[in-house]
Amino acid sequence: MATSRFRSDEAALDTFYEDLSDKHLQPLWKLHGLLTPAPEVRAIPYRWCADDLAKLGRRAGDLVPIDRGGDRRVLAMSNPGLGGAPYISSTLWAAVQYLQPHESAPAHRHTPAALRFVLDGEGVYTLVDGDPITMARGDLVLTPSWTFHEHHNPGDVPMMWLDVLDLPVVAALDAVFFEAADGPAPDPGRLPRSVAERRWGGGAGLAPAGVSDLPPHSPLLVYRWQDTDAALDALLDVENTADATIRFRDPGRDRDVMPTMRCEMRRVLAGTTTHRERQTGTRVSAVLDGSGTVVLGGDAFDLSPGDVFVVPSWCTHQLHARTRLDLFTTSDSPVLEALHLHRSEQVDA
Amino acid sequence: MATSRFRSDEAALDTFYEDLSDKHLQPLWKLHGLLTPAPEVRAIPYRWCADDLAKLGRRAGDLVPIDRGGDRRVLAMSNPGLGGAPYISSTLWAAVQYLQPHESAPAHRHTPAALRFVLDGEGVYTLVDGDPITMARGDLVLTPSWTFHEHHNPGDVPMMWLDVLDLPVVAALDAVFFEAADGPAPDPGRLPRSVAERRWGGGAGLAPAGVSDLPPHSPLLVYRWQDTDAALDALLDVENTADATIRFRDPGRDRDVMPTMRCEMRRVLAGTTTHRERQTGTRVSAVLDGSGTVVLGGDAFDLSPGDVFVVPSWCTHQLHARTRLDLFTTSDSPVLEALHLHRSEQVDA
Amino acid sequence: MATSRFRSDEAALDTFYEDLSDKHLQPLWKLHGLLTPAPEVRAIPYRWCADDLAKLGRRAGDLVPIDRGGDRRVLAMSNPGLGGAPYISSTLWAAVQYLQPHESAPAHRHTPAALRFVLDGEGVYTLVDGDPITMARGDLVLTPSWTFHEHHNPGDVPMMWLDVLDLPVVAALDAVFFEAADGPAPDPGRLPRSVAERRWGGGAGLAPAGVSDLPPHSPLLVYRWQDTDAALDALLDVENTADATIRFRDPGRDRDVMPTMRCEMRRVLAGTTTHRERQTGTRVSAVLDGSGTVVLGGDAFDLSPGDVFVVPSWCTHQLHARTRLDLFTTSDSPVLEALHLHRSEQVDA
Amino acid sequence: MATSRFRSDEAALDTFYEDLSDKHLQPLWKLHGLLTPAPEVRAIPYRWCADDLAKLGRRAGDLVPIDRGGDRRVLAMSNPGLGGAPYISSTLWAAVQYLQPHESAPAHRHTPAALRFVLDGEGVYTLVDGDPITMARGDLVLTPSWTFHEHHNPGDVPMMWLDVLDLPVVAALDAVFFEAADGPAPDPGRLPRSVAERRWGGGAGLAPAGVSDLPPHSPLLVYRWQDTDAALDALLDVENTADATIRFRDPGRDRDVMPTMRCEMRRVLAGTTTHRERQTGTRVSAVLDGSGTVVLGGDAFDLSPGDVFVVPSWCTHQLHARTRLDLFTTSDSPVLEALHLHRSEQVDA
Repeated sequence: MATSRFRSDEAALDTFYEDLSDKHLQPLWKLHGLLTPAPEVRAIPYRWCADDLAKLGRRAGDLVPIDRGGDRRVLAMSNPGLGGAPYISSTLWAAVQYLQPHESAPAHRHTPAALRFVLDGEGVYTLVDGDPITMARGDLVLTPSWTFHEHHNPGDVPMMWLDVLDLPVVAALDAVFFEAADGPAPDPGRLPRSVAERRWGGGAGLAPAGVSDLPPHSPLLVYRWQDTDAALDALLDVENTADATIRFRDPGRDRDVMPTMRCEMRRVLAGTTTHRERQTGTRVSAVLDGSGTVVLGGDAFDLSPGDVFVVPSWCTHQLHARTRLDLFTTSDSPVLEALHLHRSEQVDA
Repeated sequence: MATSRFRSDEAALDTFYEDLSDKHLQPLWKLHGLLTPAPEVRAIPYRWCADDLAKLGRRAGDLVPIDRGGDRRVLAMSNPGLGGAPYISSTLWAAVQYLQPHESAPAHRHTPAALRFVLDGEGVYTLVDGDPITMARGDLVLTPSWTFHEHHNPGDVPMMWLDVLDLPVVAALDAVFFEAADGPAPDPGRLPRSVAERRWGGGAGLAPAGVSDLPPHSPLLVYRWQDTDAALDALLDVENTADATIRFRDPGRDRDVMPTMRCEMRRVLAGTTTHRERQTGTRVSAVLDGSGTVVLGGDAFDLSPGDVFVVPSWCTHQLHARTRLDLFTTSDSPVLEALHLHRSEQVDA
Repeated sequence: MATSRFRSDEAALDTFYEDLSDKHLQPLWKLHGLLTPAPEVRAIPYRWCADDLAKLGRRAGDLVPIDRGGDRRVLAMSNPGLGGAPYISSTLWAAVQYLQPHESAPAHRHTPAALRFVLDGEGVYTLVDGDPITMARGDLVLTPSWTFHEHHNPGDVPMMWLDVLDLPVVAALDAVFFEAADGPAPDPGRLPRSVAERRWGGGAGLAPAGVSDLPPHSPLLVYRWQDTDAALDALLDVENTADATIRFRDPGRDRDVMPTMRCEMRRVLAGTTTHRERQTGTRVSAVLDGSGTVVLGGDAFDLSPGDVFVVPSWCTHQLHARTRLDLFTTSDSPVLEALHLHRSEQVDA
Repeated sequence: MATSRFRSDEAALDTFYEDLSDKHLQPLWKLHGLLTPAPEVRAIPYRWCADDLAKLGRRAGDLVPIDRGGDRRVLAMSNPGLGGAPYISSTLWAAVQYLQPHESAPAHRHTPAALRFVLDGEGVYTLVDGDPITMARGDLVLTPSWTFHEHHNPGDVPMMWLDVLDLPVVAALDAVFFEAADGPAPDPGRLPRSVAERRWGGGAGLAPAGVSDLPPHSPLLVYRWQDTDAALDALLDVENTADATIRFRDPGRDRDVMPTMRCEMRRVLAGTTTHRERQTGTRVSAVLDGSGTVVLGGDAFDLSPGDVFVVPSWCTHQLHARTRLDLFTTSDSPVLEALHLHRSEQVDA
């Protein structure tokens, strides 16, 4: 192709670029970094130490009343690569939430979906659309998109837990709605077992007959550590491996607990090193128990109970368990799979 | 429309009918009963008494060796309306199977799917594709289409249970295949918890991550009475009703335990009368516990533990529980639903 | 296993068998032919000649008024293996229907689904739930389960076509319902293009936006020969094969035209012999054009335009096209697939 | 709740905020605008005039060789609200692409999916994974995620068309991959009808039998104006409305043409005003024919053939057709629906 026909004098081009700008047009050939060979991810691999989270959570509890803006005492993990944005990656929000004795975080709902994973302690209960879910170490609690939720600490000790939301995804799609509930929280009195568990927690493959109009998320709302722990042991036993993963799922339908977030619990036996893998999408992991090391890209991070770390999209990750390691992970994989943008590979050297 | 043009002399018609017959054709206007306003069902409502089943099962155990044809000591319930066919209805086979101490029913597989429901006793285990499933009162065990299965009674007491198969459906579709296994049954030694349960029985919504290539039936294979019992109690409690039904389901996918059979356990509190209903398709029910009455069409049948009854298609049914009634029911509803032939209605007077 | 413990004297057994019979029980070990290594199919391979069908159809038209029972002048193909049952196989009904000039077959509906394939002629229209579908050579017309349908021949020449129904399947499931329409047929006046075609016939992948509440069958209702013919040519061209098959499908959803019947049109170029295959389920085929031979199991049948033949379940079939052969086939494959009972294999020698 | 216990002196808080920042944590109560009552959308409603696009496209063609960066001569519509980002909204990229006679844009592929809609002219063909798709006025051409695509203008007149990509969504998910093809483009010689059309374009509900392994997008790849035009006429006729919309769909499966973009063509009769509606997600529309007005939020924009406008998320939109208006629209609705974030409402005053 001859290019001689192009009158490429700079003055004409400058005028042209100005005219384009006037009409809110941009020439592709002047844009860079739009279509890259592989994802150019701004978020970096990072780990937040349990100790820091605990101390700063307590200080927040001492310094800041819960009703000071947002009605939640929450410390958001801000990925150092994102230039000050309060997100752990381009797609997920992660935070610790701290509730003093006899405090309540009042009810609201929003289109971003949230999950709560309890790394330590117990005593708080969360009302999800009015259904009381007690929270204790190792429990996973869902407050799905557009469900009213509120947290109450009726006891005498503070409690802290991990929150993860899909807020950046919902924001990027310009689909954030928020609504505060009217009036004071109802007092559930003596806490019964949740409706969700009585209806849906009856065991693998047992469901109420004749149910229709299920919500677009798991109706179970809570997954108890006792069950997860036993399921991991059984799976390790039957597969005869040193590394097993349980996926939390909608008990009635073939899908993840929520349309935007996958939740899994992994148990890696002491002395084991896992495969080195990577995939598109963000993973946020928290150590429930055990110690070891995670290698994220080229960086190694020590892991202790309560630590939280982020694996950005397409970043390799590999675990070494010094002692038996129990690791909770949530990811945006359902989003990438729904849009057929999911890629994964094993990259063992 | 004038019919005068038709040369309807009988002789011409007779010749015509003979010619049709020669060519393997039949005139629709001479056929009757093909398209009826509502299903004309040959199977009739019927109940088999526990006492008869138990006594005759024992006599079979005393009189007939298990290897005498079919390698199963099975008494099939033959619906009195079906003219001697060994089926409980036009779509289902139901039977009691009796195994003496130290007897084995050797492995085979067939395209008809089967389920086993234990009305009393324990001690037998069934190998399903080699996986040992122990069987005890109230357990539901699946031996899905084309899985090898064999029954072993290593103990010192005989055991009997209910078998239900979709054999008439598979036969009507000309799709029956059968294969006997080679060689003797493997000895699983000390019976471990089944692989199926260790992998899939971890609780509601807990599944192994990364599983693919699932079979066309529930991978769980067994549903334990302890779980079902607790689930029924919880459901009655949360719904605050006198009548609750748990459906057994594939724990990983949104469907029944097998493509052709639905399984449910219903608990009706003492003194309660259920709605009078009917639907297309056959229901086979067995009383696990309690006593009462079932009204099938115009006939009332007393119910005691171990009784089995059949509700033919479109026949009304209504339960009255004298004491708390626990009723196992299997049906061909998945077939009727898949083909969009399912109808149901409440017909309370 | 020692059998010596069994008191197998014949007298005891006879009494036992009588007692079983009294209680409507049958011993499995006395039953035979229930679980066979491969399907034991009563229906046999058979072909009905176009010439016979045409002549006998005409005679029916001359001899029998349409209102003589059933309101349809229909000759059902009765498989010689089925002992006089008016079915072409255990799962399908096939027939020719004959309508004289100015005759009408009044409206009714039934749960068995029907299709009409026109082997010759034109001029009749069928109202499907009131929507007028004209019928001409090569057209496939659906009258799905529980849709009102009626046939009108406003012209001056008789017309005959092929009917296929899933009646035996629906009957085996005890799910036959039938209802005659009230009152006389509405006169659609000048026949417009059907609503079905105007809404759904706009071309591959073009659908009305925002439609919900679709019926459980293809909303298109008719597939025109002109489109099918062109699609076959294009497919043969692009695949560069001598044998191509177009499947008729629901244009809006990923499924067959009706829940119980698959419809396909196959074109085999002159001089070509197809693979020898078999599958579970029945196939009913009709020659639209061309001549050749079909080998069904061990029997060869000559084929001419208008011939109809049946391939019973698991029977091998192979075509040889003397001239270019256009073959319409319907089958119960959706039933076998929905129930996971479908098997197929190529059995070329 | 008493707040007196909180030691809220400013100095302690300042130190605390510094310590949080050191540990890459941010206090939620200091963040604003995260959870808004309704979407706070930065993109604004805007229209690009056909005349400007045409003139600037021509000037680009005169001034800039196609091989000057990116191998595409593309002018991206930059939403005035997005602060200079080259996106038409937070989720979609839209641009005009201009190809001189005898020019080619070489093959590459990327995970962002693209569509091409031709507002005027003809003569270019696009190879999609090697399959030649000719392009003419009113045609919709897909180059789905990760398919190689290249554009060739073998004729003597330049051609311009509209490109829309889901690039911002894929970028927000950190899932952009890109690959240039090796070597020169193959010459398809005389352009045959595309393989895609010969295999999948055979008419509504006609598909090749026995196809498996379909891609995650419509295999049809192109929708011709002649078909769309006729489908719109038929739909207006049958619905007897003044406003009809055809959705472009995967011809084989129940879904949109691509996992991330919905495509529709709407015809509004002269003198008609449509309902005022809004929904979450972005809509990009282009006028194929006709004139009128669109009211977006509070702003009215005149519409002429070739104009392109954007409706940001949750912005109301309403059309008035002066003459009959044919409007192509693409949106990210499949993304919002897959993630259960889709909301829509009619907001007629």
